[in-house]
Amino acid sequence: MERPRHQGMAKNTYMRWRLPLVCLLWEVAMIVLFGVFVRFGAEADAHWEEEKREMNLTSDIENDFYFRYPSFQDVHVMIFVGFGFLMTFLKRYGFGAVGFNFLLAAFGIQWALLMQGWFHSFNNGKILIGVENLINADFCVGSVCIAFGAILGKTSPIQLLVMTLFQVTLFSVNEYILLNLLHVKDAGGSMTIHTFGAYFGLTVTRVLYRPNLEQSKDKQGSVYHSDLFAMIGTLYLWMYWPSFNSAISDHGDAQHRSAINTYCSLAACVLTTMAFSSMLQKKGKLDMVHIQNATLAGGVAVGTSAEMMLTPYGSLIVGSISGIVSTVGYVYFTPFLESRLHIQDTCGIHNLHAMPGLIGGIVGAITAAAATEDVYGKEGFIKAFDFTGVYQTRTPSIQGGFQAAGIVVSLLMAFAGGAIVGGILKLPIWGDAAAENCFEDGVYWEVPEDEESDAYHMHNPDKPASP
Amino acid sequence: MERPRHQGMAKNTYMRWRLPLVCLLWEVAMIVLFGVFVRFGAEADAHWEEEKREMNLTSDIENDFYFRYPSFQDVHVMIFVGFGFLMTFLKRYGFGAVGFNFLLAAFGIQWALLMQGWFHSFNNGKILIGVENLINADFCVGSVCIAFGAILGKTSPIQLLVMTLFQVTLFSVNEYILLNLLHVKDAGGSMTIHTFGAYFGLTVTRVLYRPNLEQSKDKQGSVYHSDLFAMIGTLYLWMYWPSFNSAISDHGDAQHRSAINTYCSLAACVLTTMAFSSMLQKKGKLDMVHIQNATLAGGVAVGTSAEMMLTPYGSLIVGSISGIVSTVGYVYFTPFLESRLHIQDTCGIHNLHAMPGLIGGIVGAITAAAATEDVYGKEGFIKAFDFTGVYQTRTPSIQGGFQAAGIVVSLLMAFAGGAIVGGILKLPIWGDAAAENCFEDGVYWEVPEDEESDAYHMHNPDKPASP
Amino acid sequence: MERPRHQGMAKNTYMRWRLPLVCLLWEVAMIVLFGVFVRFGAEADAHWEEEKREMNLTSDIENDFYFRYPSFQDVHVMIFVGFGFLMTFLKRYGFGAVGFNFLLAAFGIQWALLMQGWFHSFNNGKILIGVENLINADFCVGSVCIAFGAILGKTSPIQLLVMTLFQVTLFSVNEYILLNLLHVKDAGGSMTIHTFGAYFGLTVTRVLYRPNLEQSKDKQGSVYHSDLFAMIGTLYLWMYWPSFNSAISDHGDAQHRSAINTYCSLAACVLTTMAFSSMLQKKGKLDMVHIQNATLAGGVAVGTSAEMMLTPYGSLIVGSISGIVSTVGYVYFTPFLESRLHIQDTCGIHNLHAMPGLIGGIVGAITAAAATEDVYGKEGFIKAFDFTGVYQTRTPSIQGGFQAAGIVVSLLMAFAGGAIVGGILKLPIWGDAAAENCFEDGVYWEVPEDEESDAYHMHNPDKPASP
Repeated sequence: MERPRHQGMAKNTYMRWRLPLVCLLWEVAMIVLFGVFVRFGAEADAHWEEEKREMNLTSDIENDFYFRYPSFQDVHVMIFVGFGFLMTFLKRYGFGAVGFNFLLAAFGIQWALLMQGWFHSFNNGKILIGVENLINADFCVGSVCIAFGAILGKTSPIQLLVMTLFQVTLFSVNEYILLNLLHVKDAGGSMTIHTFGAYFGLTVTRVLYRPNLEQSKDKQGSVYHSDLFAMIGTLYLWMYWPSFNSAISDHGDAQHRSAINTYCSLAACVLTTMAFSSMLQKKGKLDMVHIQNATLAGGVAVGTSAEMMLTPYGSLIVGSISGIVSTVGYVYFTPFLESRLHIQDTCGIHNLHAMPGLIGGIVGAITAAAATEDVYGKEGFIKAFDFTGVYQTRTPSIQGGFQAAGIVVSLLMAFAGGAIVGGILKLPIWGDAAAENCFEDGVYWEVPEDEESDAYHMHNPDKPASP
Repeated sequence: MERPRHQGMAKNTYMRWRLPLVCLLWEVAMIVLFGVFVRFGAEADAHWEEEKREMNLTSDIENDFYFRYPSFQDVHVMIFVGFGFLMTFLKRYGFGAVGFNFLLAAFGIQWALLMQGWFHSFNNGKILIGVENLINADFCVGSVCIAFGAILGKTSPIQLLVMTLFQVTLFSVNEYILLNLLHVKDAGGSMTIHTFGAYFGLTVTRVLYRPNLEQSKDKQGSVYHSDLFAMIGTLYLWMYWPSFNSAISDHGDAQHRSAINTYCSLAACVLTTMAFSSMLQKKGKLDMVHIQNATLAGGVAVGTSAEMMLTPYGSLIVGSISGIVSTVGYVYFTPFLESRLHIQDTCGIHNLHAMPGLIGGIVGAITAAAATEDVYGKEGFIKAFDFTGVYQTRTPSIQGGFQAAGIVVSLLMAFAGGAIVGGILKLPIWGDAAAENCFEDGVYWEVPEDEESDAYHMHNPDKPASP
Repeated sequence: MERPRHQGMAKNTYMRWRLPLVCLLWEVAMIVLFGVFVRFGAEADAHWEEEKREMNLTSDIENDFYFRYPSFQDVHVMIFVGFGFLMTFLKRYGFGAVGFNFLLAAFGIQWALLMQGWFHSFNNGKILIGVENLINADFCVGSVCIAFGAILGKTSPIQLLVMTLFQVTLFSVNEYILLNLLHVKDAGGSMTIHTFGAYFGLTVTRVLYRPNLEQSKDKQGSVYHSDLFAMIGTLYLWMYWPSFNSAISDHGDAQHRSAINTYCSLAACVLTTMAFSSMLQKKGKLDMVHIQNATLAGGVAVGTSAEMMLTPYGSLIVGSISGIVSTVGYVYFTPFLESRLHIQDTCGIHNLHAMPGLIGGIVGAITAAAATEDVYGKEGFIKAFDFTGVYQTRTPSIQGGFQAAGIVVSLLMAFAGGAIVGGILKLPIWGDAAAENCFEDGVYWEVPEDEESDAYHMHNPDKPASP
């Protein structure tokens, strides 16, 4: 039942040799680099019994695995099901959304294990990995999934792999600057993941601006069931966000606190999102785009401060504000960005990640600057901000300043990096589709016969299968 | 492509100012109340290092977070994905099912943290919260999700928020009476969550009886894919129910035992549900309504007794019976309730929660009354029923009596509360839809163009987009 | 709206008395056997306080529950949502896929608790169960879900229950031979679960060969949204596979290591699958069948070796190869098996489980044979392979030999068992459908009106509901 569905496809989207080549060569490179560099950390190595004795641990339960593995699995679900299904809202791009997200994340976590390993887990020429590295690799890839949201439907899988390669690299450099050089706290990644990832993606999509994109406008919307698929993504992101923000916090109270703050922030965010979604629509009806996205802004906006003593009511305030900002963004900013700044942001990551990420960075800086020994306790204060060694003399207000600097660095890295990578992706060799074929799975996927015609065929046996 | 789809909409369902007002005012109230009352408990506070010393804890792993957080996340999934998707079975009410469930639960958990906090975690004028409070808030909201099932498709989002406000309040009072005054055990909430929630919802839907509901009968069914979406909800509820029933049990054997009992009960329930679903249908075919719902009755019915020494075979028996009762309920009771008692129960919560909840309460009372020091061990006996302090002299048979009293109290609270709240919801100011517009997302949601016409438009480029 | 959809249904698929009878009788048998044999293990029994003292445990956190429960829940999701939804790809067999999987797994876990209990947890005439037994029961049922994949759409629910009864029995015998008699390591079940389950299922489907199956060819494909439902299954299997392979490994480093190895293997597998999916298709487009299935081969292929010192780069190599083998299998082997060997393998389990399972067994044998005290540490070496007691003198190379023997035993058990069970299932009493009614939910399920005609009915109010 071949129909000339993609007439006028001027561009060469033929993937047969290019995609396999990139995938296979890069996987071979991963194998070689892992072979040279990556080994098990002490807690995953068979020498653990000796390690336990050395560290005076009395039980296997002290293995970091048991502190972090449940959170790791939740984060894993967020990256693959959360981001993957959130983007299935487009009526004819569900395969691409969930499938390309799968591809880029699977490559990205390998490369992130290496990049982050060189910066943070390098020891005697080897990268020693454990469950925390897996979480961090997932986090790093999360920033790529965010950027993917801006260019969803407009790029080839090769472009996505190329972007992943560069973005993971830049992410790791930026993260190193923030966490190690500026000694900034950012456990839930408001700055390193969301601000960086979103502005990177927005810059890339600006460079890749497509003036004729309205040619595929009919495919930029959702259908009833695609909106329900997207809600699967939304809910898993929303439910597991407490795990995201607490996954790499310090053992004990810090993980516990991060989860509570995030839980509160997200709950508040849902109410203000619903309120503004209804308020900003002439007929007062709720818009699934807002519910699918803006309800998550509360998780982004406490990413930096969740492990601090933000307090539950502080979290409610941050969540409430970010839900409002995000929903307003969908109604007013996204059209403005597209028409005036030529930023075509398919999923509205500016509203879900960029602005809430900035809020998160600022809230983190303020919360850090406002910290006192009274609130944290003497020991808790030092532990919370890691004011040890060369940082022994840092005061909260200085820490707040460095936190603010972290936002600026992340923005600069995102703009510069996004411009360069956008330029690379603009090269006419990567196989992206023409404007009229954007948001259409048929370009890169074998798509089954349409439900419509199937139904036709199945229930009207008198009539021929192909009209 | 505006079509006059909702002609004859006599009622004013315009939400533009009412819904935002309620959402925003209530969220502000939450912020104020949280600001006055809610603080981190000792295990989530930055003073934890001092607390650890005081309590002689040698490791961060002793933080309650690590005992309960994995179960908390499972419960969270049950509330938001489980209940949300279970109710997407209606062909044109998927947005409302998953979206309104999201809204009411997000508000409800905040209000529950306060209400339950005042009763159970109030200390020196502050509510001190930790992971157990989050679980309990989710539990409390679970009872609202249950009641939502009875009125699904027939109420406005404002009505749902109003109901949530009152039901969470009444839930907390009832829970306080049962757990604190009657000293009843009910870790999985057969009485506090299911019996109370279901009879409350059934009373509300009775008060809100709509004589002309058959006008929207064509929308009360499912379509093929909406039934599959509902199965996502079913399976997550089914799989994570062992976490639900064990989440707030005592550390150690009690959590372990609850999970095993629930696992066994649910497994048995699936078989008897399938058996009766086929047996009660003339053609012997299985009915998705039963599979989606009655398979879960086994989890409800061991809610009280799961942490007791019910034993695995006891669990199989309880699960088997509840699957039968629930399936029979769908076939015979639901039509009877509707036609004779004017109880319109959209999701059949009478079969899934009310009757199995009663079974659960009774099984709990019997299991408690039958407890012996021989079976539990001397220490285990005291620990399992908390027979300390003023309860030191309670015997199993007295405990059984109090357990039974707990069922009666829950029922009375549900009927009285449901009648009052139903009366409030009947006021003509909340924006509910006319009978012919029930079960239709278009009333409160921006609904995308139909798949049908999209398909048409996309694959027949010769014809115009709008017929 | 009754239409004679299933004309020519020569076979008697009437389930009304047969299915209920089997379900109820078997459930009664389970209750009796559980009553006689199954009790709580020490860690789930109310005597736990005494047990703790006896074992010198200082904290409830030492209860095995906290080491394994999060992994258990992940495995549970894999069995019910993972396998269930993976098989919903067929356009008109979603109810059967997810519903029959639910049925057989719910029965299977009960029977597996008994069978495995008699072999492994039998003590003084009682089977003492804990969380590890629940995991093992899920694992055992996993092998039945795999076999179900081969015969999906072609069998009645009674046939599936009969197969489950026998396969669980044979699985337990085979597992006992491997783990206890041969003293083989197979924590993730490459041999016991995948190799055994897949070749068993392939043998059964061979015996049940249907020469006229092309009569239902139009229903053997997917539709757009059924492919997205299947991706839910794929992703949950993919994401939680690290939990699967580590769930019953030794506490501490072994669980930690298994998770890391599996994470790496699966990531690599995605890239090679995408590469070969595009490469082997003339137009270079990706095929959802490959993405849904072959991406998982990496988890299967490290099932035996994940808890060994396979190393991260070793895992990447194994994952890469298995992705290639599996994708090549879908393109070339499946058609060959069907046309030449008359093996009709609906889901392609030969590619996803059989071949990768063999790879997994071989990789395990090699990794074991290559083990040295240098790599594992003296203690770690003994602990990893349990070289204690009568196995004190085993060398790595002997262990490798026994591992290889385990593959052979699993294959023989699968072929012999599959042939016998296939013969039993061929009896004309189980109510399977005629060839032209295969892959059609309407045979065993009440199926809602079609979306097509609903849409028609709802949006064209002028026309009558039933054409």
